[in-house]
Amino acid sequence: MTTLTTRDAVFALMREGQMKLCAAFEEIDGAAQFVSESWERPGGGGGAARVLTEGAVFERAGVNVSAVHGAQVPPSIWQERPTTKDQSYFATGISMVLHPRNPYTPAFHANFRYFEAGDDWWFGGGMDMTPCYGFSEDAIHFHSTLKNYCANHFIANYATYKETCDDYFYVKHRKEMRGIGGIFFDNLHPDGPEGFEQAFAFTQEGIDAILNAYLPVVRRRMHTPYGERERQWQLYRRGRYVEFNLVYDRGTVFGLQTGGFIEAILMSLPPLVRWEFNYQPEPGSSEAMLADFLRPRDWAELSA
Amino acid sequence: MTTLTTRDAVFALMREGQMKLCAAFEEIDGAAQFVSESWERPGGGGGAARVLTEGAVFERAGVNVSAVHGAQVPPSIWQERPTTKDQSYFATGISMVLHPRNPYTPAFHANFRYFEAGDDWWFGGGMDMTPCYGFSEDAIHFHSTLKNYCANHFIANYATYKETCDDYFYVKHRKEMRGIGGIFFDNLHPDGPEGFEQAFAFTQEGIDAILNAYLPVVRRRMHTPYGERERQWQLYRRGRYVEFNLVYDRGTVFGLQTGGFIEAILMSLPPLVRWEFNYQPEPGSSEAMLADFLRPRDWAELSA
Repeated sequence: MTTLTTRDAVFALMREGQMKLCAAFEEIDGAAQFVSESWERPGGGGGAARVLTEGAVFERAGVNVSAVHGAQVPPSIWQERPTTKDQSYFATGISMVLHPRNPYTPAFHANFRYFEAGDDWWFGGGMDMTPCYGFSEDAIHFHSTLKNYCANHFIANYATYKETCDDYFYVKHRKEMRGIGGIFFDNLHPDGPEGFEQAFAFTQEGIDAILNAYLPVVRRRMHTPYGERERQWQLYRRGRYVEFNLVYDRGTVFGLQTGGFIEAILMSLPPLVRWEFNYQPEPGSSEAMLADFLRPRDWAELSA
Repeated sequence: MTTLTTRDAVFALMREGQMKLCAAFEEIDGAAQFVSESWERPGGGGGAARVLTEGAVFERAGVNVSAVHGAQVPPSIWQERPTTKDQSYFATGISMVLHPRNPYTPAFHANFRYFEAGDDWWFGGGMDMTPCYGFSEDAIHFHSTLKNYCANHFIANYATYKETCDDYFYVKHRKEMRGIGGIFFDNLHPDGPEGFEQAFAFTQEGIDAILNAYLPVVRRRMHTPYGERERQWQLYRRGRYVEFNLVYDRGTVFGLQTGGFIEAILMSLPPLVRWEFNYQPEPGSSEAMLADFLRPRDWAELSA
């Protein structure tokens, strides 16, 4: 049996995470600040979207926290967990998407979420990275950091979470991966009286893991010189991001179904995107090598 | 009972339509030509995509013809027509999307399609226009042309088809219309021994109606001077086009499910698109007035 106190604790964690992350992203950007937009959901709940626009490092960064509740679990949830059908629910989460300006800096996405439906509760979340150009060094750093983070929590399993992430971020209609993956977990409800605290602690450390896993990669790439060719490739690759998010992304589908603040739900869409009919990168070029680079592999076991 | 001959006749109509329309679009563009890309579908059938890129008038124009068949009607069809479940099917169609360069020139979309499933057959199709700036004169011309076209065919009903179009091109999550609508019909299977010929003739004239309804609007707007403000608004509005097509468009969903040539299926996506968090046009501006302009009204009954 859960109480309002657990909801409050998780919501507070999400809000603190938002403040901490936004401060760190502003610091690395050095030029632009986040602006906040609070919203209420007519059906119950609301949230706060924080968005940084036209920064020096980030063309757009959005960090959104929401807490929504309702009398009926939405279809995207009960289709996965049939026992929750017709139950009331509460959901809170933090989600973020960062679209850097420099084409050599990968885009980044993370979310952590907590659900209650009837007497059931569970945590979910994870993070993944989407480069336009493949650097083994970055992928190794990212996955090693996530592996170490998971190793600190006996309830977590890096190998399984990585596989879940790889399965999820597959753009079926393109037959290609969205990025280099990362970790994703769902339905995390550890057994025993300490289960909630264990899952909470794992989520809490996940927010720090974002900074450790992603920001060193940003610092390494954000000043790399680039030209029109790299910019155009970045805009083109962002098309895949849009396709994935509008067609497959569970958070987006949940948002469109529950009808939250649409600007926060679609905050993940990149600032500028390009589609080109039947584009094929020049054979042998860095652009052409990306598809192979994105094939899932055990990055944490490789050395730079 | 339908025979292979009817399939051949409809497919030939689609191919002729593609040639005629591409020639007309090239003529008005004056700078760029269509390039062709043929494709085969592993499951059966194929098509030919014709795409004009970076023209003087059209930033992108795509006209695609396909004919696909399979042993099992895909879900997007049988969910609408349960009796066709587990039947084999044949589908041929022409679809086109034109994204003009000048922000004062509306984008345009049309398709005509023909299905056979078991012993059943039906036609569908229509066309609609998506301006970034509202001009009553254009909307009146467009809808009057479509009303006259329908009036030539007793099997057709402009009022119903307009309503179907208005219902369909509603971007639910934005609570706004995609454009000024037009006509759309589905499940057209007139009774009687002449039914097929009547529906065929209606489809055939529909291809000419495209030229009469849309091209005069293009000619009227294609040289209108514009600046960065109008360009940015156009790119922003194209975001709605992407959202509609990837989330709701039945042709796109059918394409993603049947797995045709993905570049032809996603040919509808604009060449360059912009998203901006929580953007609100300046109150009282032409941009701010668009949402109201797009509300469905009886354009064909108004006078310019």
